Amino acid sequence: MERSVRELWAESRELLGLHSEDVPRADLPPTPLAFLRDHVSPGRPLIISAAATRHWPAATLWPTESYLSDALCSTDVSVHITPSGRADALAPHPRRPDAKCFASAHVRRVDFPSAVRLIRGSDPDAGLVAYAQQQDDCLRGEYSAVSGDVDAHVPWASEALGCLPEAVNLWIGNSCSVTSFHKDHYDNIYVVLSGEKHFLLLPPTEHHRLHVRDYPAASYVAEQETEEVPRLKLEMEEPERIVPWSSVDPYPASPEEMAAQASSFPLFFKGPRPIHCTVRAGEMLYLPSMWFHHVSQSPGPNGLTIAVNYWYDMQFDIKYAYFNFLRSLEIKDSPPLDNNDDGFEGELDEKKD
Amino acid sequence: MERSVRELWAESRELLGLHSEDVPRADLPPTPLAFLRDHVSPGRPLIISAAATRHWPAATLWPTESYLSDALCSTDVSVHITPSGRADALAPHPRRPDAKCFASAHVRRVDFPSAVRLIRGSDPDAGLVAYAQQQDDCLRGEYSAVSGDVDAHVPWASEALGCLPEAVNLWIGNSCSVTSFHKDHYDNIYVVLSGEKHFLLLPPTEHHRLHVRDYPAASYVAEQETEEVPRLKLEMEEPERIVPWSSVDPYPASPEEMAAQASSFPLFFKGPRPIHCTVRAGEMLYLPSMWFHHVSQSPGPNGLTIAVNYWYDMQFDIKYAYFNFLRSLEIKDSPPLDNNDDGFEGELDEKKD
Repeated sequence: MERSVRELWAESRELLGLHSEDVPRADLPPTPLAFLRDHVSPGRPLIISAAATRHWPAATLWPTESYLSDALCSTDVSVHITPSGRADALAPHPRRPDAKCFASAHVRRVDFPSAVRLIRGSDPDAGLVAYAQQQDDCLRGEYSAVSGDVDAHVPWASEALGCLPEAVNLWIGNSCSVTSFHKDHYDNIYVVLSGEKHFLLLPPTEHHRLHVRDYPAASYVAEQETEEVPRLKLEMEEPERIVPWSSVDPYPASPEEMAAQASSFPLFFKGPRPIHCTVRAGEMLYLPSMWFHHVSQSPGPNGLTIAVNYWYDMQFDIKYAYFNFLRSLEIKDSPPLDNNDDGFEGELDEKKD
Repeated sequence: MERSVRELWAESRELLGLHSEDVPRADLPPTPLAFLRDHVSPGRPLIISAAATRHWPAATLWPTESYLSDALCSTDVSVHITPSGRADALAPHPRRPDAKCFASAHVRRVDFPSAVRLIRGSDPDAGLVAYAQQQDDCLRGEYSAVSGDVDAHVPWASEALGCLPEAVNLWIGNSCSVTSFHKDHYDNIYVVLSGEKHFLLLPPTEHHRLHVRDYPAASYVAEQETEEVPRLKLEMEEPERIVPWSSVDPYPASPEEMAAQASSFPLFFKGPRPIHCTVRAGEMLYLPSMWFHHVSQSPGPNGLTIAVNYWYDMQFDIKYAYFNFLRSLEIKDSPPLDNNDDGFEGELDEKKD
């Protein structure tokens, strides 16, 4: 049975023209028709060069040292704080050895200059990493004072998709922050304005390679709310809440952890390589809905990675029905045999839940 | 396992908005963007009212008694002749009792007025039914003398799909001719100009319901090539050629045949009802690529059903990869239990071929 799933992986990459493990690039934005036909409908990502955002005031103002801090000097914003830079990611369960939980950040409202100080001072060794990543349409909310520095929407995408963005978000972090593998029920236009974002991508057809499992939810909380630089502890949510999340960490911290990951999650580590792309300042990534993505970042000269993303409501159509069907089939993954290089030892069965 | 497949059937119909078992209708042709976004990308059929073809000379000329016979009086055309009106369909195997074969028509080149006489004189009881259905871009080939009576392509479809039609075909028959369940690797715009076409449709997600099996190919041949009204016999192709084809006849000729079909092909007869639509003179049907369709017809006042279809190259994308994955999973269908109304007794397994 696993043969059929492997053929699906290979054929979908082949048909999308992604066998080069690289995302198609365009110098100029596509027409709405070409965008819909060549990218949205087939589910094919696209990177568009910085020419697309050259007219944005943000393209020149935001990478500077102080423009945003001046413009937002008296604005309170939400900053997400974790010990490790991994918000919304798996972490060791605080009470059960060898178990993991799904850990959300400690969210604090501070004035914007303080948020930037916390982000620039992020240090996983000191147990504190800050990331402004509110994801609740925050560019048009908390950051409305500077929202006019970018286009209110992406005109060719809005025309193609027949709607305006559901949310526009601002992301400010540095290399300490990483976003773990997940998917969104949105068509996503992701624009980097300072630094670079590094994406690992898997098409929806490779769902099983994420080894999605159920994890209990937890949150980082400050030991004392009044401390300017909080000390964090991880608390399980009460009552228990279960979050299905990818078990895979594509960049394990140690050789031992890599060996454990590769042995536990062979569909990821022994399958086709994830598609990798880097989006540079000024560039736009179109990430089709339901694509799995893992995001890391490098700061620009101002010490920050700054990005804006536009979430458009996805179309729930036959592709979505197929995805749900695929997801309903369970591959029972067992550790690969040593003499089997492709490591695909699973069996496909209907999920029992 | 069969539960997952049934859920796929239900969810894809639900997401396509087809739970009413009726095809969406529009009074006017869609814009290219709306066509791509709302129909091609999700794979959703559409019927457009006769307003779309009111400017075609064919809309008024072709339904008349004699226009086409006059315009094509000295043109040779291909006419497909079978005893039963079922070309490219299953027929009893000429040498093996209880077995079936895939039977192609006897194709004869005659002048157009003779072709129309053969079509109008079709009589399954007399063992001769004629259908002009050459399907090799014949409107721009054999029928080029009248091809200017219709638009050379469908402008909003060509703009949406980014190409011109690969083939434009003319179909002339009457109620004696039926086209059995099949799918095409094309996006199809089907325009009726005289009479009505009756479509039974199943989305690609319902592949298993067609009970596709391998059949040996056969052709009807004339016992004497010189006879004006040929007597036909069915000959197996040599060397043997195998055609995978749907086993299902949705309209069995007798109660006994219906009982045999329902018992042999429960996924079709006990699953959700096929989507039914009638396309009337002047109307257009957009039939997305890979949709299964069964077509019957009623003649107009001129005694003929006349239609033109435009085949556009389909996009082989992630939907196609999903379809191939689905098709690779075999449901072992066994006759349903009498006390099981939904009759879905199969098991899903990987196909062994």
